Amino acid sequence: MDDEIVANLKSLSIDMINKAGSGHPGVALSAAPILYTVYANHMHINPKDPEWLGRDRFVLSAGHASSLLYSNLYMLDYLTLEDLKKFRQIGSLTPGHPEYGVTKGVDISTGPLGSGLASSVGMALALKHLKTKINIIDNYVYVLCGDGDLMEGVSYEASSLAGTLKLDNLIILYDSNNISLDGSTSMTFDEDVRERFDAMGFYTTIVHNGHSTGEIDKAIRRAKKSGLPSLIEVKTTIGAGSLLEGTNEVHGKPLTEKDIVQLKRKLKVKDEAFWTNDEAIKKYRDKVMTRSNKKYEEWQVQFNEYMNRKDIKNFLDRKIELNITENPFNEIVAEATRDSASKILNFLSDQSDLFFGGSADLASSTKTYLNGKGDFSKDNYSGSNIRFGVREHAMGAILNGIATVGYFPFGSTFFAFSDYLKPAMRMSALMNLPVTYIFTHDSIYVGEDGPTHQPIEQLSNVRSIPNMTVYRPADFKETLGTFITLTSLKKPNAVILTRQKVNQLKGTNPREIINGAYIVKKEKETANAIFIASGSEVALAINIASELEKDGYDIRVVSMPSVELFLKKPKNYIYNILKPGVKTFFIEASLGDELRRFVSNDKYLITLNSFGTSGKYEDVLESMNFSQEQIKQRIEKLL
Amino acid sequence: MDDEIVANLKSLSIDMINKAGSGHPGVALSAAPILYTVYANHMHINPKDPEWLGRDRFVLSAGHASSLLYSNLYMLDYLTLEDLKKFRQIGSLTPGHPEYGVTKGVDISTGPLGSGLASSVGMALALKHLKTKINIIDNYVYVLCGDGDLMEGVSYEASSLAGTLKLDNLIILYDSNNISLDGSTSMTFDEDVRERFDAMGFYTTIVHNGHSTGEIDKAIRRAKKSGLPSLIEVKTTIGAGSLLEGTNEVHGKPLTEKDIVQLKRKLKVKDEAFWTNDEAIKKYRDKVMTRSNKKYEEWQVQFNEYMNRKDIKNFLDRKIELNITENPFNEIVAEATRDSASKILNFLSDQSDLFFGGSADLASSTKTYLNGKGDFSKDNYSGSNIRFGVREHAMGAILNGIATVGYFPFGSTFFAFSDYLKPAMRMSALMNLPVTYIFTHDSIYVGEDGPTHQPIEQLSNVRSIPNMTVYRPADFKETLGTFITLTSLKKPNAVILTRQKVNQLKGTNPREIINGAYIVKKEKETANAIFIASGSEVALAINIASELEKDGYDIRVVSMPSVELFLKKPKNYIYNILKPGVKTFFIEASLGDELRRFVSNDKYLITLNSFGTSGKYEDVLESMNFSQEQIKQRIEKLL
Repeated sequence: MDDEIVANLKSLSIDMINKAGSGHPGVALSAAPILYTVYANHMHINPKDPEWLGRDRFVLSAGHASSLLYSNLYMLDYLTLEDLKKFRQIGSLTPGHPEYGVTKGVDISTGPLGSGLASSVGMALALKHLKTKINIIDNYVYVLCGDGDLMEGVSYEASSLAGTLKLDNLIILYDSNNISLDGSTSMTFDEDVRERFDAMGFYTTIVHNGHSTGEIDKAIRRAKKSGLPSLIEVKTTIGAGSLLEGTNEVHGKPLTEKDIVQLKRKLKVKDEAFWTNDEAIKKYRDKVMTRSNKKYEEWQVQFNEYMNRKDIKNFLDRKIELNITENPFNEIVAEATRDSASKILNFLSDQSDLFFGGSADLASSTKTYLNGKGDFSKDNYSGSNIRFGVREHAMGAILNGIATVGYFPFGSTFFAFSDYLKPAMRMSALMNLPVTYIFTHDSIYVGEDGPTHQPIEQLSNVRSIPNMTVYRPADFKETLGTFITLTSLKKPNAVILTRQKVNQLKGTNPREIINGAYIVKKEKETANAIFIASGSEVALAINIASELEKDGYDIRVVSMPSVELFLKKPKNYIYNILKPGVKTFFIEASLGDELRRFVSNDKYLITLNSFGTSGKYEDVLESMNFSQEQIKQRIEKLL
Repeated sequence: MDDEIVANLKSLSIDMINKAGSGHPGVALSAAPILYTVYANHMHINPKDPEWLGRDRFVLSAGHASSLLYSNLYMLDYLTLEDLKKFRQIGSLTPGHPEYGVTKGVDISTGPLGSGLASSVGMALALKHLKTKINIIDNYVYVLCGDGDLMEGVSYEASSLAGTLKLDNLIILYDSNNISLDGSTSMTFDEDVRERFDAMGFYTTIVHNGHSTGEIDKAIRRAKKSGLPSLIEVKTTIGAGSLLEGTNEVHGKPLTEKDIVQLKRKLKVKDEAFWTNDEAIKKYRDKVMTRSNKKYEEWQVQFNEYMNRKDIKNFLDRKIELNITENPFNEIVAEATRDSASKILNFLSDQSDLFFGGSADLASSTKTYLNGKGDFSKDNYSGSNIRFGVREHAMGAILNGIATVGYFPFGSTFFAFSDYLKPAMRMSALMNLPVTYIFTHDSIYVGEDGPTHQPIEQLSNVRSIPNMTVYRPADFKETLGTFITLTSLKKPNAVILTRQKVNQLKGTNPREIINGAYIVKKEKETANAIFIASGSEVALAINIASELEKDGYDIRVVSMPSVELFLKKPKNYIYNILKPGVKTFFIEASLGDELRRFVSNDKYLITLNSFGTSGKYEDVLESMNFSQEQIKQRIEKLL
């Protein structure tokens, strides 16, 4: 049966690519025995309950092998033959790269290389954490990756952390075919991959004959006994069986008709598009389901007792109880919003186990450490503080993996370094995962550390990601409102916080954050102007407004902690806050391209448009024409 | 002398940090012997000719150790004591992190971890390439890095490539103190770093006593004999000598007065701020300059003969002769702008050796391969095609390193993956380096590969980087104009190209690119509307305008290949192209936040605001309301 199924997986993949007119035959032909062995002999899954918490996970980090994954998901009853025929068509369940939330059985979206592997570390980590609460969790994360995945820095970062954390539930299968898109990897990737993974604390092994499902199976069994995260190098031939096998020519475009005919002959499958070996498929399915059903039924029985536990119920519902009937916080005076967030995060993590995360070696600066919750380490998987190391990109990818397991994870770093993990933020947004990115040191107020550490365009950049909600609270109350809102919305989001102290403002209101923007200082009679601001510039705007009032102006100040939430409001709300026809300024220590929609002319944007500079922050503001006095004068000329 | 200078380097650094009120004492105290040994015994430099092509390079990848570097540059006559006293002040030559172009003797800007190490690979690579033209080049690139640098994925990517390319002129000194900002690295970074570098083809060695300049020196000498790129692990104690030595407490804030007093006593330096050991400094300077001057003088003699060579003169002047008196290209029919760029790049590289670059394993798709110029490989350093592997971020950082040596390098990948190298683009822009980023597959026209591969916000993101010029040409002529312009401006820039074919347009003009925008289709009499577009949407805009003319409208079409260049034009030019008062639409298959400045209302932005989808590109356009017919109807309703 093994060979028959492998052959049929290959032929179906080739048929799909051929019908779509695009796709990647090379990896489908080289990696079919690997993927098959994992599913046939190891995976515990249930197509009728594809989200089953107790399932094993499979990550196709080489996302361009999607046709292979879909063929397999067809055989295991997640997809129909019709779905396979719609490969890479609009609205199908079989898009060009695997998409989480679109296709049942796809545990995470992949495509950008390195991303899947890095996220799989998050899954493995989350399963270890969850096992400390639900002891019956006993699952593996299997990853299929290629040379390209391993060349990407993000996969190194995540693997190094997996080794440090001894995540023995992570098994990486490396389709080692020595060919990438542009040719032989000897030109670009001459390292000893297994030795590198040895150095990172992995168990490593090799399968010399990548056609042999038996050898692959034995390697996986060795890996499981190792007590370490594992890398199994499987030597394969790209495009095995094609006339172009072993060359980069077979990587990324459909095979010719002639090639398909001879390939199918070699594979001993019928020369008929989308032919299926129904007898073998039935055997395969029975084998997987017999094993899986046994575990599934045991799980159901054992899990019942957990279902009575409130924390578990909340976990399964991704429910966070942010019960703030009485204010649990002491009177707050002037403090940085990073400090406000620190208190709130700690409060939240007391209320809900879903909050789980860490920092890219900046917890002492971003203040996101959860006190008394312990460090997640190889000796303590119940710890709730993940020390990601100086690995921003992997942090983001790992958060995505953690979120797919059911958590509401967070990660923090300096805002300037959001650039490093933007690719992961985009994946959070694409998958609509409830990941919270916490970025502190949010503008030129960073001061002495200079332009490399001073965000300018970053706020525009994170706001530009579709489906990402960005919050930039003005003080403690708004920071509290931010977390109340984001835990209720459960979407991908970013929270932008100050390093420097800000005053607590009279007009701010936690309950208004959900509206995106609201009036924090009403005009006395008829507004001559409206100042919109976010974060630390709200206090600045209020101060300037108050000063200008002495000169007879009447000014409304609007706090806009979230542009995205405000833009979702109905028109009448928007026009109530922003009065069309009234001169409107936006004051924000950022680039502000996305704010232009709120002002009638570029000159009313009081923003930044060049890199910062190193110096005391008051001097930096002055040098960039952004001190309170300078802004007041700039505005006064325009009133 | 050695110990005296090391002690004085430490005390000056501590004084600088203390006076500034911020900085990083930990690494200054641990790494002083390393930095000193490199300069005292190895570097060939000339403070009177700091840009000397034949110098060795020093990269402080641990950029937060800037005080140490500056103290050293003071001793070697690049800076004055007054400069040290202005550490981290506005406008000083001693900013918080080292800045290229600001401080003589700083070979590259650093600060974001990993970045310096990755760029040093570019320097080493460029020096190897340059040596095939100028045989007397014989220089080393020394890098001082810490744990944080080595945790970052970009440093792994670049190191793996350095190993593959056998860059034996690269010597990395690893300040191994087992402490990062948040605490012990055992929690985060438990790998065997030397074993990992062994696996990547490096020579590795260890210095057990990091206080011993003698041991460090011997290790560097061993490295030089190895014939391989080298990693020297130097075991040190963070904050050595401080009361907080060996803890993360000493990483990032000034020492207390009490600590400074006892430290200076240990160091046997006078307890006096900015005290200098003038006698020892003189000896140190003499030692470095005697060695350096000898080499400098020999170089001058030998270099004279090269100065007569036109290619070398052009190299030194960074002069590109883009001599296009007659059109060297065949008649162009419909073709993708990536194909147009391919021809032009090949033409350019025939004209100038400055053009040198490669692709992140996508040359076959981005079409940036330079035909007949060979691959840059360990066996052929004269090759002009760099195969970066699937390592976008390292590619960007390496391009920066190459540019500091004097080249005009380029690198290419898919536009969606510009996210991966954004941090490097920002560094190019900060340093004002002439690096060209070539991004193809520029929007949802990517089609089947789906949302992970379809740029939406990327065009806004690259345009948002201060000092970055972005070009999105409409056809062959505009692509030609793009390269004519960017080679004349010599700035950091990005070129955004199509995957799909575009028609050659009647109204386009290479000479207009420098203006950023110009009229490609004039109205017949009085324009009812203006359509602005870039790239493939220019043809679309012209088509729609022509159709609407049948219905009696009179429309001007403006091509805007570069928003940044257009915004630099005088107002009268701008108002000649865009007539205030005339209804203006911007059509671009991108997010378009930065385009709002050109339209009077959001509804005139014909752009995209959600992720794409997998399907045939015509179907994807249709599903996103972006087909020609749909756009025509959308606009017609608004006219």
